[in-house]
Amino acid sequence: MSPSANTTLVSIDDIRRAAATLHGVAERTPLMRSYPLEELAGVPVYLKPEMLQRGGAFKFRGAYNFVSRLTHDERIRGLVAPSSGNHGQAVALAAKLFGVKATIVMPTTAPRAKVAGTERLGGRVIFAGTTTAERMDKAMEIIESENGTLVPPYDDPLIIAGQGTGGLEIAEDAKALGLDEYAVLVQVGGGGLSAGVSTAIKNVTPRAKVIGVEPAGSPKLSRAREAGAPVTIASNPKGLADGLLAVRVGTLTFEHHQAYVDEVIAVEDSDLPPAVRFLLDRHKLVAEPSGAITVAALLANVMRPTTPVVCLLSGGNIEWDGLAALLTGKQ
Amino acid sequence: MSPSANTTLVSIDDIRRAAATLHGVAERTPLMRSYPLEELAGVPVYLKPEMLQRGGAFKFRGAYNFVSRLTHDERIRGLVAPSSGNHGQAVALAAKLFGVKATIVMPTTAPRAKVAGTERLGGRVIFAGTTTAERMDKAMEIIESENGTLVPPYDDPLIIAGQGTGGLEIAEDAKALGLDEYAVLVQVGGGGLSAGVSTAIKNVTPRAKVIGVEPAGSPKLSRAREAGAPVTIASNPKGLADGLLAVRVGTLTFEHHQAYVDEVIAVEDSDLPPAVRFLLDRHKLVAEPSGAITVAALLANVMRPTTPVVCLLSGGNIEWDGLAALLTGKQ
Repeated sequence: MSPSANTTLVSIDDIRRAAATLHGVAERTPLMRSYPLEELAGVPVYLKPEMLQRGGAFKFRGAYNFVSRLTHDERIRGLVAPSSGNHGQAVALAAKLFGVKATIVMPTTAPRAKVAGTERLGGRVIFAGTTTAERMDKAMEIIESENGTLVPPYDDPLIIAGQGTGGLEIAEDAKALGLDEYAVLVQVGGGGLSAGVSTAIKNVTPRAKVIGVEPAGSPKLSRAREAGAPVTIASNPKGLADGLLAVRVGTLTFEHHQAYVDEVIAVEDSDLPPAVRFLLDRHKLVAEPSGAITVAALLANVMRPTTPVVCLLSGGNIEWDGLAALLTGKQ
Repeated sequence: MSPSANTTLVSIDDIRRAAATLHGVAERTPLMRSYPLEELAGVPVYLKPEMLQRGGAFKFRGAYNFVSRLTHDERIRGLVAPSSGNHGQAVALAAKLFGVKATIVMPTTAPRAKVAGTERLGGRVIFAGTTTAERMDKAMEIIESENGTLVPPYDDPLIIAGQGTGGLEIAEDAKALGLDEYAVLVQVGGGGLSAGVSTAIKNVTPRAKVIGVEPAGSPKLSRAREAGAPVTIASNPKGLADGLLAVRVGTLTFEHHQAYVDEVIAVEDSDLPPAVRFLLDRHKLVAEPSGAITVAALLANVMRPTTPVVCLLSGGNIEWDGLAALLTGKQ
């Protein structure tokens, strides 16, 4: 039994409540069939394009859900969030919608598109080191000195429930299509998305499988599963999938993974640019490397599916310059 | 009274029948709210992203609808289609789904992405000149010598009804959102899309306005409206919006425009690349210049809306190399 098995998991009702909160505020992204991937994989393949979500990534779901549950007093003190980029944009957007201020602590290595996106939404960006720990330390320092309110990036039940709404949409759309046994490939960073999505999928369509996909250079979930508890990996992972470079999965997110994630697979960095280009050329969708990692798992044969597959595309926050650099190898 | 006022217009029932034919075959693309455009335009703006349609453009709707109504005998003789690119890909895809052959006659100037897309789908590509007339002549020659069956690009009731299904989806989704008075911006090439979409919009939501958008260098609809009948403009229009360079609107499509299109506006070529980039950076969608022309009309203030607006994005058939050339000015 795992050490924290007494943790209360997020329930499907929590996710349904989050979906009601997000109704008319977040985009309900479609479940699109990918015929080009189907030809390669030999099974029906669907895409859940969260780059079409507000803010360009799934992160708005969790951030808005969390911020909506704060008291007025907590909100007007100002929101503070540590973020590799997408969570920051999501918090800046939620703050804007609630008419309050947001301060986002980003790594000095954050892609320009993510910094610009946050600032465009009125967020104040502060840079702090390159690691999750450095960002969190700086965020706590700001919260202390300015009396702000933390919006945690992933290890929180309201964040997990919000991210789970994307999984609920997948499960509902899959049911409407008559899918029963199918597999969902989902990104693993700190674990908020994979925790929420797996909870929704397993509760609504229990025969479906959920497969976590992490970058080979940042295998925090597979290491945690080996150890039976979250472990901290190499302190400064590098890689193209900048949204998935957490050094440790969350305590609460890990419990959800133990309950609901069937398998974890790893994708090499060199397999990411071809997947970004495939989505661009064949599906007319801009994915950031983290967002394309599930498609990379299929294209690079890391996963050979035997049932229909859903690839979650977690975000597309890469602008023209970054995309050009990525696809021409000049970055 | 116009010379061909006795033409039978496509009805909303024809469009509903086409929608039933396309159900489960074509993608039902979402109506997405564009908050970034809304901030600039001051009214709610929605996008209908037909680059997410099968084949990367709206054209599959009409082509599949037409091919589905052919007899088995007509189909197995092989399909022949003149096309600037997107219709060709759509016909090649429809032929593949029905297990028959397709020959596509394209201009020598067709973008590589459109040629490659057609060939990838098993279509045979034959090049003929640069004008609509040259392509049609060559197509008729092939039909005669090989006993093939023409799939017309736009001036046909089944094609118009098929393209109209995109308009039906817009009108249904607009109604569900409570929109009543709104404007739809739609591309005008040969007129199949704008004819079908305007028919659906006006029949389902009569208070909505439909505004045709054509490239300033190829003003075939505004000239036809001045003349009261289709006229042939300069024989070889050039421009970035390669899908909209027809030299004359169709006879049947023109009748639909006279009945249902409220206004026609023109967009300069120089306004197209910024719109392509805006959709890429802010909406994570790849649009070809023709597909982005409706957004260009808003960004360049050619149209200053006073009601909610829907911008149809007709297609995204530009691959990485073409996109790079367009956005870096090196083409």
